[in-house]
Amino acid sequence: MYFWRKTLQLQTIEKYRRTFNAYLNKQISLKEPEQLYEPMIYIMGLGGKRLRPVLTLMITEALKEDYKKALPAALALELFHNFSLVHDDIMDAAPLRRGKATVHSKWDINTGILSGDAMLIRSYQLFESYTPDLFKPLVELFSKTALEVCEGQQYDVDFENREEVTIAQYLHMIRCKTAVLLAASMQTGAMVAGASALIQQAAYDFGIYLGLAFQLQDDYLDTFGDSASFGKQIGGDIIENKKTFLYLKSLELSGPEERKELEHLFSIRPQDPSAKIKRVREIFEMAGAHLAAKEQISEYTDRAHAKLEEMSLEPKALDALRAYGDQLKHRSI
Amino acid sequence: MYFWRKTLQLQTIEKYRRTFNAYLNKQISLKEPEQLYEPMIYIMGLGGKRLRPVLTLMITEALKEDYKKALPAALALELFHNFSLVHDDIMDAAPLRRGKATVHSKWDINTGILSGDAMLIRSYQLFESYTPDLFKPLVELFSKTALEVCEGQQYDVDFENREEVTIAQYLHMIRCKTAVLLAASMQTGAMVAGASALIQQAAYDFGIYLGLAFQLQDDYLDTFGDSASFGKQIGGDIIENKKTFLYLKSLELSGPEERKELEHLFSIRPQDPSAKIKRVREIFEMAGAHLAAKEQISEYTDRAHAKLEEMSLEPKALDALRAYGDQLKHRSI
Repeated sequence: MYFWRKTLQLQTIEKYRRTFNAYLNKQISLKEPEQLYEPMIYIMGLGGKRLRPVLTLMITEALKEDYKKALPAALALELFHNFSLVHDDIMDAAPLRRGKATVHSKWDINTGILSGDAMLIRSYQLFESYTPDLFKPLVELFSKTALEVCEGQQYDVDFENREEVTIAQYLHMIRCKTAVLLAASMQTGAMVAGASALIQQAAYDFGIYLGLAFQLQDDYLDTFGDSASFGKQIGGDIIENKKTFLYLKSLELSGPEERKELEHLFSIRPQDPSAKIKRVREIFEMAGAHLAAKEQISEYTDRAHAKLEEMSLEPKALDALRAYGDQLKHRSI
Repeated sequence: MYFWRKTLQLQTIEKYRRTFNAYLNKQISLKEPEQLYEPMIYIMGLGGKRLRPVLTLMITEALKEDYKKALPAALALELFHNFSLVHDDIMDAAPLRRGKATVHSKWDINTGILSGDAMLIRSYQLFESYTPDLFKPLVELFSKTALEVCEGQQYDVDFENREEVTIAQYLHMIRCKTAVLLAASMQTGAMVAGASALIQQAAYDFGIYLGLAFQLQDDYLDTFGDSASFGKQIGGDIIENKKTFLYLKSLELSGPEERKELEHLFSIRPQDPSAKIKRVREIFEMAGAHLAAKEQISEYTDRAHAKLEEMSLEPKALDALRAYGDQLKHRSI
């Protein structure tokens, strides 16, 4: 019974993903000047989970509207997400994205900047298929969200060079950098479905909690995950001295000695980081930060689920949305 | 009489500029995170002619609408223009802009990329003060134009690394890179004034011709201007081996020997460029490219003026718009 439900959910999600990818391939095509549009096709072709557009399509259908009506908006959100990856990868000097060369390393930095700009503008254009009365609120939500994502990226950069970061500041940063775009993906679908302001708000809030849980889980797996199933190196955040939830919570919960040791460990970059990673993990566990993270993830997931109940959703789609939340709680990748 | 008219025109233009700058200072203010918004305030504070917003305000009033209604749209266009300067300056590795440090040299490249992105998004937000029925066409024109400006920048980069560039391709490039934004500034004002599609088109076309004349005059002055009044080094395009109208026209009009010499001169970068500049200027003049440029500028200015006559404009504002065209024909700076 459980297995059968699970299969149905996955089929539903797969349907959205497939329809979305077909629409994408039709909309994002090569034009002159090629150097401007090729990187757009390249990065959009690297795949990924399509989390944001799937959320948009899912909530649109859950609110009893034809989900295909939301395809242009869903593509706008995915295109924006990829624009932000292209520019972030330049800023982080990242050579790889989804196992392939990043745009600026495959072409060059200038190409990354300019084709990124074009992607951002193209994402605005995708909303043009909606009537003026829908176009305006969609674009307003989109701009507000896009600006918050930039602010999140800036906070992320700022925190690297700042001694004191509070947990509240960290949560605000990941809210901007990750959660608001998932929230906007949800609200966008609700708007296309013609939902009330109350339903729109519930959809938005679901996305916020989902996004916060998602990012905290990402932080958790980066330190405590299984490298084989997580698919990337474990301890990357520790190597980079990133002030994640685990680090900040450990500082809060540790005694003065461990705190001092942890601060020292997060100021060095040893050639072989394995001893550092091991010791940091021990301190995290002694402080109970890993449990605090799990608890926080659980709380956000519960809140996300509660938001789902506030909307009167079509049962099959509600199921699929619930599955997204559950996946997060139990995921190891 | 002529002097009196001239003074009146300048006063009119000065009125728009002053009102615009006051509006700008109110709208673009410091917010958290500061590192994201400081560069925006900095670049917008460097001044400049405010050509684009002044055009918007001028045509709005010329079409008998309160020009203040166009202030948000005018600021959007100026903010977009400055966004494009910030990103272009990174791509060109330019240390100076209007005699001051460029954003990426005052801060760093990452700050230039990210605050530029925020400027682009903020410029979209400025349209939000218009009703949905006006918001949508304004944003559509804005996106179309913004994408063309990116395409123009890409063509400019492409031409540097390409052997063969035709004059038609060059004109298409400067149309995208410069003229469409002036055209959009004009059409935006006409749209805010509630003008007919025909008037909107005439306003747009005026901007295209003005922009083409403006850019060709810029090319001309870069080679044949007076360094004292032009305010920048004469011969910069020649030093950089830029395939401008003068160069391409000279290739077209010269005999095989001069053509070969010119192509050679545009493949070298001597330490002391003065002999090269002198010789290139001679070849340009022998070919008659300087006269062809003047003729082309004159033709575009005439066409711009003809477009003005197609609209029934309020006389004082018509005068001010005419003055802009005339300034171009006779300007030495």
